Amino acid sequence: MRIDLNADLGEGYGPYRMGDDAALLDIVTSANVACGFHAGDPGLMVATARAARARGVSLGAHPGFDDRRGFGRRVIRATPGEIEADVAYQIGALQACAALAGHRVTHVKAHGALANLSNAEDDVARAIARAVRAVDDTLAVLVMPGLAAERAARAEGLRVVREIYADRAYAEDGQLAPRGEPGAVITDAGTVAERTRRMVEEGALVTRSGRRIPVAIDTICVHGDDPHAVATAQAVRRTLEEAGFTLAPFAG
Amino acid sequence: MRIDLNADLGEGYGPYRMGDDAALLDIVTSANVACGFHAGDPGLMVATARAARARGVSLGAHPGFDDRRGFGRRVIRATPGEIEADVAYQIGALQACAALAGHRVTHVKAHGALANLSNAEDDVARAIARAVRAVDDTLAVLVMPGLAAERAARAEGLRVVREIYADRAYAEDGQLAPRGEPGAVITDAGTVAERTRRMVEEGALVTRSGRRIPVAIDTICVHGDDPHAVATAQAVRRTLEEAGFTLAPFAG
Amino acid sequence: MRIDLNADLGEGYGPYRMGDDAALLDIVTSANVACGFHAGDPGLMVATARAARARGVSLGAHPGFDDRRGFGRRVIRATPGEIEADVAYQIGALQACAALAGHRVTHVKAHGALANLSNAEDDVARAIARAVRAVDDTLAVLVMPGLAAERAARAEGLRVVREIYADRAYAEDGQLAPRGEPGAVITDAGTVAERTRRMVEEGALVTRSGRRIPVAIDTICVHGDDPHAVATAQAVRRTLEEAGFTLAPFAG
Amino acid sequence: MRIDLNADLGEGYGPYRMGDDAALLDIVTSANVACGFHAGDPGLMVATARAARARGVSLGAHPGFDDRRGFGRRVIRATPGEIEADVAYQIGALQACAALAGHRVTHVKAHGALANLSNAEDDVARAIARAVRAVDDTLAVLVMPGLAAERAARAEGLRVVREIYADRAYAEDGQLAPRGEPGAVITDAGTVAERTRRMVEEGALVTRSGRRIPVAIDTICVHGDDPHAVATAQAVRRTLEEAGFTLAPFAG
Repeated sequence: MRIDLNADLGEGYGPYRMGDDAALLDIVTSANVACGFHAGDPGLMVATARAARARGVSLGAHPGFDDRRGFGRRVIRATPGEIEADVAYQIGALQACAALAGHRVTHVKAHGALANLSNAEDDVARAIARAVRAVDDTLAVLVMPGLAAERAARAEGLRVVREIYADRAYAEDGQLAPRGEPGAVITDAGTVAERTRRMVEEGALVTRSGRRIPVAIDTICVHGDDPHAVATAQAVRRTLEEAGFTLAPFAG
Repeated sequence: MRIDLNADLGEGYGPYRMGDDAALLDIVTSANVACGFHAGDPGLMVATARAARARGVSLGAHPGFDDRRGFGRRVIRATPGEIEADVAYQIGALQACAALAGHRVTHVKAHGALANLSNAEDDVARAIARAVRAVDDTLAVLVMPGLAAERAARAEGLRVVREIYADRAYAEDGQLAPRGEPGAVITDAGTVAERTRRMVEEGALVTRSGRRIPVAIDTICVHGDDPHAVATAQAVRRTLEEAGFTLAPFAG
Repeated sequence: MRIDLNADLGEGYGPYRMGDDAALLDIVTSANVACGFHAGDPGLMVATARAARARGVSLGAHPGFDDRRGFGRRVIRATPGEIEADVAYQIGALQACAALAGHRVTHVKAHGALANLSNAEDDVARAIARAVRAVDDTLAVLVMPGLAAERAARAEGLRVVREIYADRAYAEDGQLAPRGEPGAVITDAGTVAERTRRMVEEGALVTRSGRRIPVAIDTICVHGDDPHAVATAQAVRRTLEEAGFTLAPFAG
Repeated sequence: MRIDLNADLGEGYGPYRMGDDAALLDIVTSANVACGFHAGDPGLMVATARAARARGVSLGAHPGFDDRRGFGRRVIRATPGEIEADVAYQIGALQACAALAGHRVTHVKAHGALANLSNAEDDVARAIARAVRAVDDTLAVLVMPGLAAERAARAEGLRVVREIYADRAYAEDGQLAPRGEPGAVITDAGTVAERTRRMVEEGALVTRSGRRIPVAIDTICVHGDDPHAVATAQAVRRTLEEAGFTLAPFAG
């Protein structure tokens, strides 16, 4: 009856900020921090690590494609070797920023188009897993259950943490419905909280048609960058606590 | 009778290359590798770390200002906290790339305008030293002897490695003569090799007027990015070997 | 009894936005649009030009240093030739984006640290003025009255438009009080509106000590990137209209 | 009996250079200049425009994807509206740099992955053509004959200049053989010169199997960024001159 709640944070850059990081850090138990490629810069990474540490929130690297303008949401064709190097670079960069903040990195979660590729393509998934293992083989990897990323992490002997998305609809194959489709992102806080509770209690993804896909669920992702992010995250947390769950970092 | 020879390597980016890294790696004993801010990218960092490892060349981080267009040679005013974060980020990024290559980072040397500032301004020097110590307090710091960077590294309890520049003229205060001045960069390979031998044997900087400033010398910097770099580095190495010195990494 | 109201707009980048451009475009009569160096990207430039055109708002290029992370607020030492090229590049880029939007660029205003340098250093001011003249000698140049930028623009035969800052305190020499100083940025909308009215009616800068420096005033700059920007801009506009001024683009 | 010879130039960035631009400018009659997205920076653009003007070489914009690290050779998925804005931005930027240099832009040629997409996808081709027309409808567009880019340029009423590649093998459908394939890039200068002469004299592409695809040929592209670029370009020029052709800018 213990579950982790994670969000993507530190997604600003230079003068820009995205989302209300301070409010979310009071709600979540794990933070995935942008590492300077699709978003983030060293000063923001240190500040986010420091704020996470102060609240007992676990710290994860959130590597993405080297594409600030596209926020890492566009596929950039790269060789597995390039992806491996890029992911290692980003993890190491956050580890060092965390060291400055007196915190440490305990997990890795791929971002955006890189995450999508890692769910669909084995060579991308393996490149990421190899990078994680080379940098620190005690790092956990956050994955959508049952896809290429999970297989690759297991093959490299890494700890796997399976996540569901609180506010994203699932297609019948257990993948996320593409953002562009109507209904792909669920915006009502109550609806998001209720479906999350159901999925966690039943130990299953619930697809658009209502079908259950049984999966182990270790963590729930709430989003940080939409207008209702904080209210939604609070609703998810409260609903889970009322259902008897203890929210705590999986890494604890 | 043992001395280290270091050069700045991995200073390309994307499709670009600077200098003949492969040839220089056969000559030097320590490599300072650009970390993606003034130059370098993850793929090149991994490749350079791999090539260094294959030749027994020690690996150092070469952090600079976040200014690819200016190659880190322009001062960018930043707070000590920003510099601290930027330097930590770059060291961590190279550590991770080194891990992918089966190598490890054993020293740090600031680049360009950041190095110049760290010789002249205590708060910049201390920001760099704090970053090094936070990330890994066993890292050695390459410094020009007697300036702010050395003081700061010592104050943080870091190992200090003192370097001279083979091909750069010294002003009467022991600082480098500014690049723009006539004679600031010495280009004749024989002249460079001879003055280097003299400085190492005498344990002293030789200024433009011929004055000696006694200093301990642990390593010699040869440059990688000018047309005669390889010939000059070879001349320095051969001259030192003929004078009875053994060239070996200080980190060994 | 006719005055222009200008604001810096289009200062987002990729996924980021800064300020409420849509609301400000309903208030101001001239827009200074970031050109991709300190902020802005082509899509945003076209969209901003289109929105300005729809409201009859004049369009100006707002070139800055090539420093997105520092938002163009850090001095980056460059030669006059480099500044000339960078400014020309940015103006041309916006002209083309404006063409796509069916609008046209009619003025240029330097941003941030580049603007500060152009007020203080003649060679920087002249580099900017040469760039403007080379690209289109009918472009007006927005300047703080009485400083190097105005002299340089006049020397190049360019039309000069003199501006005051609604919400920034003036030092005794007519320069802006540095942002860091207490009271340098005035935040109360009513105070901002009243001092603006007074300066426009009296044809004088009012310094911190209350001294008048007589200047011709063609336009008033309101800021777009602070939380009260829209309310302040509205108060300035309303106060000026109530005092009998007609707000209209200087370029009209 | 008049033909144009074009090359991609100004492909450096900051401290980096690519190819021997000075030597190539003595051989070609038209230069396609990188505009700061995949390569190039304002200072280099002005310098290249100045050097082209001094030699009577025509100037073209060579817009690419906003991807310096990948040198514009990776597809970056963007909407037609984004591509339109990016292309307009780049053309305008070069026009302004050319104005500083006393030269002017007379053509546009897409670069790398953007060019490949514009040959294969009508919506990309049309976005580029719309951008050209909006910025300056007298600009000529360099295209590979018979593909989407030519159709789109004609549909927008733009002048079309058809080019062949001196050193690239043609597949049976008239597209370039992909760079990765063996024999796709022909490196022997004599072979390149001879096949070019044959194609120009016969007014036909010669595919790998030896098949002729009749096309009008207005210009020949030689490459600037490989080690033998200058020798190859010289051989092409000499061979054409010996065959009685006059080399002159198509824009003349």
